[in-house]
Amino acid sequence: MLTRPEPHTMSSTTHAQSVAVAEADDRNFTASLSRSAEIVDAVLQRALPQPAGLHGRIHEATRYAVFAGGKRLRPFLVLQSAGLFNAKPAGAARTAAAIEAVHTYSLVHDDLPCMDDDDLRRGRPTTHRAFDEATAVLAGDALLTIAFEILAHKSTHDSGEVRARLIARLAEAAGSNGMIGGQMIDMQAPSRAFGPDDVILLQCLKTGALFEYACEAGAILAETDDIEQERLRHYARDLGLAFQIADDLLDVTGTTEQLGKTAGKDVEQGKATLVSVYGLDGARKEATRLAGNAARLLDGYGDRAKLLKELPHFIVDRES
Amino acid sequence: MLTRPEPHTMSSTTHAQSVAVAEADDRNFTASLSRSAEIVDAVLQRALPQPAGLHGRIHEATRYAVFAGGKRLRPFLVLQSAGLFNAKPAGAARTAAAIEAVHTYSLVHDDLPCMDDDDLRRGRPTTHRAFDEATAVLAGDALLTIAFEILAHKSTHDSGEVRARLIARLAEAAGSNGMIGGQMIDMQAPSRAFGPDDVILLQCLKTGALFEYACEAGAILAETDDIEQERLRHYARDLGLAFQIADDLLDVTGTTEQLGKTAGKDVEQGKATLVSVYGLDGARKEATRLAGNAARLLDGYGDRAKLLKELPHFIVDRES
Repeated sequence: MLTRPEPHTMSSTTHAQSVAVAEADDRNFTASLSRSAEIVDAVLQRALPQPAGLHGRIHEATRYAVFAGGKRLRPFLVLQSAGLFNAKPAGAARTAAAIEAVHTYSLVHDDLPCMDDDDLRRGRPTTHRAFDEATAVLAGDALLTIAFEILAHKSTHDSGEVRARLIARLAEAAGSNGMIGGQMIDMQAPSRAFGPDDVILLQCLKTGALFEYACEAGAILAETDDIEQERLRHYARDLGLAFQIADDLLDVTGTTEQLGKTAGKDVEQGKATLVSVYGLDGARKEATRLAGNAARLLDGYGDRAKLLKELPHFIVDRES
Repeated sequence: MLTRPEPHTMSSTTHAQSVAVAEADDRNFTASLSRSAEIVDAVLQRALPQPAGLHGRIHEATRYAVFAGGKRLRPFLVLQSAGLFNAKPAGAARTAAAIEAVHTYSLVHDDLPCMDDDDLRRGRPTTHRAFDEATAVLAGDALLTIAFEILAHKSTHDSGEVRARLIARLAEAAGSNGMIGGQMIDMQAPSRAFGPDDVILLQCLKTGALFEYACEAGAILAETDDIEQERLRHYARDLGLAFQIADDLLDVTGTTEQLGKTAGKDVEQGKATLVSVYGLDGARKEATRLAGNAARLLDGYGDRAKLLKELPHFIVDRES
């Protein structure tokens, strides 16, 4: 009997074990995310000018915005997708730094008084609160500009063609038919009635486009074929929507302290969110469905895709 | 006696003739400037998305900012410097379009209420007045982004290496140690005492960096050696300072109607200008000296450099 525990006991043990495994997975996952952040921060430390001279303030402001302890999710996507295809780590790290610069610039500009008017970001005063509006506009501009400088440099990839393709695709993803277009729709949201498809388009542009690029970039660096690049983009589309739903849910259910940014802003500003489209429960279900979809797309890649397959679930379950 | 006019008469005739030649030169020059504008506008018409969809407003705003009838001086510099080295016209036109997009973005952001707070630009309401501040910030962002997309595209140059170099140098010239750095200094100018060297540094960054790039770009497109590229940059440095002095002079002496932008803003805002460094007469002399210097740098290029050699004088003598 000792060798055969009661069904209830067995079930408990198995449950405890699986919780332990899940926690260990979570720790591994979190450790891997931190490691990505260190790698990309090291590149950004070297790439961003040190404050000096009469215009030192602009360098201070860009560094303030960038080194604020973000999750570095997009860099993680670049590094992992590059790993999937054995692209060189150094080039992947630089590409990840470029995308994080673009992401940070978009936060700095979106937080401006004339946009979302946010005082808090990543638990600290936003750049225009810590400096001033003019400096924040210029810091955003500088971060967008340096992203392309980082990609254009020879150390990103031996081939000029590959660097030019990385640049062209980043510009598309971040441009007026990508991320900027999404923010443009978002700014009009309070005054216009948007249907569910409109809200999904908004999010696909505002968040999805840069997620797609982050995943595709690894494939571009490794010079894979178009099919691989499209599969990674598809993964990123599902992941991006799941991420955005989770973000919208957190805006409703989270606290400002938890989030490091002002909670409840979407409802307050009358923003069109995916929670307003699906409802609270519907949104949770849709996020879980999208996360599962995304993970399954990478079934064929074996162990190398382990973290990319865990990420969608991590994103949906996150609390900040 | 009929064949030999009085000295006084002869002198008059010669003067009249030389005025006529100068006027014909001016006409040729102005026609050539217009032709450059047509070439670069045709590229920008194709490259900038047409307003469509939920985010059509961003495309409207970028087009509003770009197609406002600017002088297109920087495109002229690219096309002429490309002509100097026989670079392909199509690639030069695209490079010129990219630089004009960057220049226009800088005007849109500089005109914002939190920066220079200008209501008028190129004789029309500034972008944030015609649309709103958020749209103007995003339109600037979109123009900066598309500049790199235009350069990265294969039709700019067959070689990916050349495209990547064009991009790297544009990012440097427009970045926080270039144009953006200059604007950062300018924003601090009213509250800090700047010496002559500081004002010259400000202008070299704010205006000079993009002028330098515009001239250097032709040499990069033609894959010339570093000496040619440095000579073009030197020409551009002198030209840029002469241009800025003329601009500062016009701000003092011109009318708002003449300039198409608000006159007298520099003094009103306590800006550090080159007129405040040199005084009115000194500034005129310095502009003329720099114009002569710039022109002489191109003595070795023969007829191909004719317009580039005329440009400094045209810039110093302009009335708007």
